[in-house]
Amino acid sequence: MSQKISDSTIRRLSVYLRLLEDLEKAGTATVSSGEMARRSGTTAAQIRKDLSLFGSFGKRGMGYAVAELAQSLRRILGLSRPWRVALIGAGRIGSALFAYPNFASRGFHIVAVVDNDPEKVGKRWGSVTIRPESELEATIREENVDIVVLAVPAHAVQDVVDRVVRAGVRGILNFAPMPLKVPRHVRIKDVNLVIELEALTYALIKETELNEAG
Amino acid sequence: MSQKISDSTIRRLSVYLRLLEDLEKAGTATVSSGEMARRSGTTAAQIRKDLSLFGSFGKRGMGYAVAELAQSLRRILGLSRPWRVALIGAGRIGSALFAYPNFASRGFHIVAVVDNDPEKVGKRWGSVTIRPESELEATIREENVDIVVLAVPAHAVQDVVDRVVRAGVRGILNFAPMPLKVPRHVRIKDVNLVIELEALTYALIKETELNEAG
Repeated sequence: MSQKISDSTIRRLSVYLRLLEDLEKAGTATVSSGEMARRSGTTAAQIRKDLSLFGSFGKRGMGYAVAELAQSLRRILGLSRPWRVALIGAGRIGSALFAYPNFASRGFHIVAVVDNDPEKVGKRWGSVTIRPESELEATIREENVDIVVLAVPAHAVQDVVDRVVRAGVRGILNFAPMPLKVPRHVRIKDVNLVIELEALTYALIKETELNEAG
Repeated sequence: MSQKISDSTIRRLSVYLRLLEDLEKAGTATVSSGEMARRSGTTAAQIRKDLSLFGSFGKRGMGYAVAELAQSLRRILGLSRPWRVALIGAGRIGSALFAYPNFASRGFHIVAVVDNDPEKVGKRWGSVTIRPESELEATIREENVDIVVLAVPAHAVQDVVDRVVRAGVRGILNFAPMPLKVPRHVRIKDVNLVIELEALTYALIKETELNEAG
C-alpha cells in the first residue's frame, strides 16, 4: 500500500462508506459506480480510481457487492476495531460532541470525560463520570484511551496535549482554535469552525470581486 | 489576484491573523516572520511565501507591523465587513454553535435561528426568536442572511439547501454528514466530525502497519 494516498481520497472513502451503509440498510445487494457517483456528488471514474488504490473491488458490468465493499472500506479506514476515546473539556462543545449520535455507531466509544471545573467533576454523563484534569494521565492509562478529543480553551490546550502525548495517546482531534505541536508519531486533526467560516468568506468576497471586475 | 490560491494557504492566513490579533492585544507593534513561524507551527519561508501572494508586507530587517498586517489579512479574508448568519437546526450541535464564543468576535452575527420542532419555535436564544422551517425563505430575505450554518439531520438537509439557495444564500457551512449539491455560484464548506475521526484512524492504522512491516 502506497504512503502517498491523499487526505481527500480518505475523506471520499468515508463518504462512500456512509452511502454503502445506507444501501445496506435499504437491503440493496449491489451498486454501480455510476449510482455511487450520483449519490456522493462525484464521478464514476473518481470512485473507480479511489478504490483501485486499495485493491480490486467489483466486477465489470456487475457493480460492487454493497456489504463486501462496506466491509473493505471499514477495514481500510481502521473501523473494524473499536476506538477508545477520551473527551477533554465538558463545556458546550464537549457536551455537543458527547451527544453526537454518529460517534458510537462508527465504533468511537467515549470512555472518559475530563474537565478542570470542580462543578463538573464527579457528574455522570451516561455511564461516564467526569474526572478532574489532575487525573488526566491516570484516566488515559486506566481507560486504555486511543484517541483524545480536545474541547478545551485555547490558552490551556498545548499543555494538555503535551500531557496526553506523554501518557501514550497517538491520535488527537482538536477543536481548539490554534495549531498544536505534537511529536512526529502522533496524528492530529484540527476542526476549527472559524477557519472554515473564513475560508467561506474568502471565497464569497473573491467571487464578488471577480463579478465586479468582469 | 490569482485564482489559484489554495485552500490550505487561506487556512494558514486565518492562523496568522489569530496570532497577530493576540500580539495586538499584548501591545506588540512589530513581529518577525521567524517569531510568527514559531507561534504558528510553520516556517518563516512559508509565511513570506503565503503573504507574497497578496502583496508586499513588512520591511526587510524590520519585521511586520502587527496592526497593519492584521488589518490586511482581515480585508483579504473578507472580514472587514460583518456577515449575517442564519443557523438552521436548534438541536445540540446548533446550540453549541450558537454559543461558540469566537463567532461574534470575528464578525459572524447569528441573526436568525430556524427549526422544525414546534417545541422550539418561538423560544428566544439571546436576542433571536427561533422561527419555524415553514418561514425559512422569508427569514433569509427579511434578515438579509449571507451565510447559512446547517445543523440539521442528514435526511432533511438537501431539501433545506435547495430552499436556502433559491432564497439567495451564497455561502453554506454544513455539519450534516453527507455531501450536498449546490449550484456553481454557491460556496459550501463541510465540517464532518466522523470524517475527521476516520482520517485519524486511517493514519493510526497505517502507521501501525508500517511499524509492523518495518
